[in-house]
Amino acid sequence: MTSRIFNFAAGPAVLPEAVLEEAQRDLLALPGVGMSILEISHRSKAFDEIIQGCEADMRRLANIPSNYQVLFLQGGASLQFSMVPMNILPVGGKADYILTGSWSKKAVKEAQKVGTVQIAGSTESENFSRIPEASEIRIDPDSAYLHFTTNNTIFGTEWEKEPESAGLPLVADASSDIFSRPIDVSRYALIYAGAQKNLAPAGATVVIIRDDMLARSPKGLPTMLDYNTHAKERSLYNTPPVFTIYVMRLVMKWLLGEGGLEGIGRRNAEKAGLLYDAMDGSGGFFRPHARPGSRSKMNVTFRLPSEDLEKRFVAEATAQGLDGLKGHRSVGGIRASIYNAFPVVGVNVLVSFMREFQKKNG
Amino acid sequence: MTSRIFNFAAGPAVLPEAVLEEAQRDLLALPGVGMSILEISHRSKAFDEIIQGCEADMRRLANIPSNYQVLFLQGGASLQFSMVPMNILPVGGKADYILTGSWSKKAVKEAQKVGTVQIAGSTESENFSRIPEASEIRIDPDSAYLHFTTNNTIFGTEWEKEPESAGLPLVADASSDIFSRPIDVSRYALIYAGAQKNLAPAGATVVIIRDDMLARSPKGLPTMLDYNTHAKERSLYNTPPVFTIYVMRLVMKWLLGEGGLEGIGRRNAEKAGLLYDAMDGSGGFFRPHARPGSRSKMNVTFRLPSEDLEKRFVAEATAQGLDGLKGHRSVGGIRASIYNAFPVVGVNVLVSFMREFQKKNG
Repeated sequence: MTSRIFNFAAGPAVLPEAVLEEAQRDLLALPGVGMSILEISHRSKAFDEIIQGCEADMRRLANIPSNYQVLFLQGGASLQFSMVPMNILPVGGKADYILTGSWSKKAVKEAQKVGTVQIAGSTESENFSRIPEASEIRIDPDSAYLHFTTNNTIFGTEWEKEPESAGLPLVADASSDIFSRPIDVSRYALIYAGAQKNLAPAGATVVIIRDDMLARSPKGLPTMLDYNTHAKERSLYNTPPVFTIYVMRLVMKWLLGEGGLEGIGRRNAEKAGLLYDAMDGSGGFFRPHARPGSRSKMNVTFRLPSEDLEKRFVAEATAQGLDGLKGHRSVGGIRASIYNAFPVVGVNVLVSFMREFQKKNG
Repeated sequence: MTSRIFNFAAGPAVLPEAVLEEAQRDLLALPGVGMSILEISHRSKAFDEIIQGCEADMRRLANIPSNYQVLFLQGGASLQFSMVPMNILPVGGKADYILTGSWSKKAVKEAQKVGTVQIAGSTESENFSRIPEASEIRIDPDSAYLHFTTNNTIFGTEWEKEPESAGLPLVADASSDIFSRPIDVSRYALIYAGAQKNLAPAGATVVIIRDDMLARSPKGLPTMLDYNTHAKERSLYNTPPVFTIYVMRLVMKWLLGEGGLEGIGRRNAEKAGLLYDAMDGSGGFFRPHARPGSRSKMNVTFRLPSEDLEKRFVAEATAQGLDGLKGHRSVGGIRASIYNAFPVVGVNVLVSFMREFQKKNG
């Protein structure tokens, strides 16, 4: 694997090497099937085993209760921004959204096409450098649900614990930190996530939805946008993204083998800790964008003393095989995305590089 | 490749071996990139070259005029059944649809949620065993467009030439025979196709749309369902199905290398000819479902003298490595799907098997 570099991109993102190797080995012909995973019918017995195995492993991994459906869809979180309100926000009704960054804003924009959106909390005035405190969140008990974004890829902030929803169904866009640590699914009414950060390559969206939410969908929705279509047909109403689900299955197995969500959670905490400790010990040379208590373990965003130094940092890192470190333009600076499959060794290499860089330029 | 069998499935379907081999070889690390295609950012230079190369090759292959946009979407033809009317059928307006099978029916059902659908022609009373004659089609000049399905996977029928639309914008679901023969794109206002038959593995949808159609989209559509979103952002509004587009690019290159649409069209005619000739020469033992003049070159459907013999046919064929031949329940019998990448040798093996089977059971 000497030709591989360290990929700090925000997503699509790095996958476990063991997963890539198995996918590569079997790409021409799945064992015992005689066809490539890229060619098999979604109605075949072989794929049945893959999608059911993926769901079963996911249920085991996250302890998903039996009154929740697991749906494998397409279109990413961006399509869920519309599907959520179209299905569970009654026309003319209202929903509460917490604003913690660009993705929450996009979710709000789509929900406003269906009903009234109330901003239950926001840290926009502080450039989303933190998650709102419990005391800053105002919930309307008549709202249809409370929506939040679990982790904010651009700003590098993450909820340590889901917000209290005061009895409202809790809906989460968990695209960028799903299955990165233990989760109590029973606290949620609906969780959705694009696959391309912690689950699989780009091309699938996972929706975990509590049965009672399914009853909310109004009649006359486009068939493909109605959660009931996919729940009834077990994600096989039409051709699903077969290969992406196959890789997701391999990733679920890998996560179980890594000690499940407890195991991966410990490692993610260790990886993020290495980076934040290095910054906190840098005498202010490296300054995290996120405030303590809101720091993401998936996307570590930080600034250097000048934009000039930031440019040099990215260029020199890239030359050393540390790729994808340029921050998003909304925050500037550096962003190191270190999802589940990102190896500890890569974080150590980055920390060493940071120390060297500071020595030369500090 | 001895472990591979002949895959007659209706889709997802067989891919060119050269494409599979290249995808396999580069799966751990794209040459010069150092990451897997499953991991690279959709905003990376490497992916830019892939998606732009895919579009350029497709434009060259099908001679797509410059006043057409090529969009790479998700959700399959099933989502297009809704997106087409949501974008180009004015609310309360009417559209003409020609009914030639199950997929046209599904398209009609979704369009009825937006406006009035007029059935411009149908062969349902003959169990969709043929394409309507020109004289059977009634077009309303006030309709927003005329929609048809170019090839009917279940019934095994195919339009030899697109219908006359009497000046209406022509919209085609070409999922199952796109790029199987030369096409005059300029006769269409919009062509859409799920990727999983002739273009790539499952997980992407191609939409080829004439610029003037883009102006029809009403304000307030869900962002992801508005063609303008994807046209403006060149299919990068959100994370596209990176791997599927990568394989599609390899397939486009392969098609160009096979002599383009002229070359592949000749070979498809040859393959289908072998099967239909064998049936026509079987003294009625093998009876094609499709009537002459409507016979599909992609999905060859036929019956045997009894259901018992059909079951035996499928079982013995499967045992000999001829997989996926069971017909759809709407027609019964046998279906041999022989898309672009299905090899001539596989058709010859099937023809030999058919002769042997008839000898033993005829």
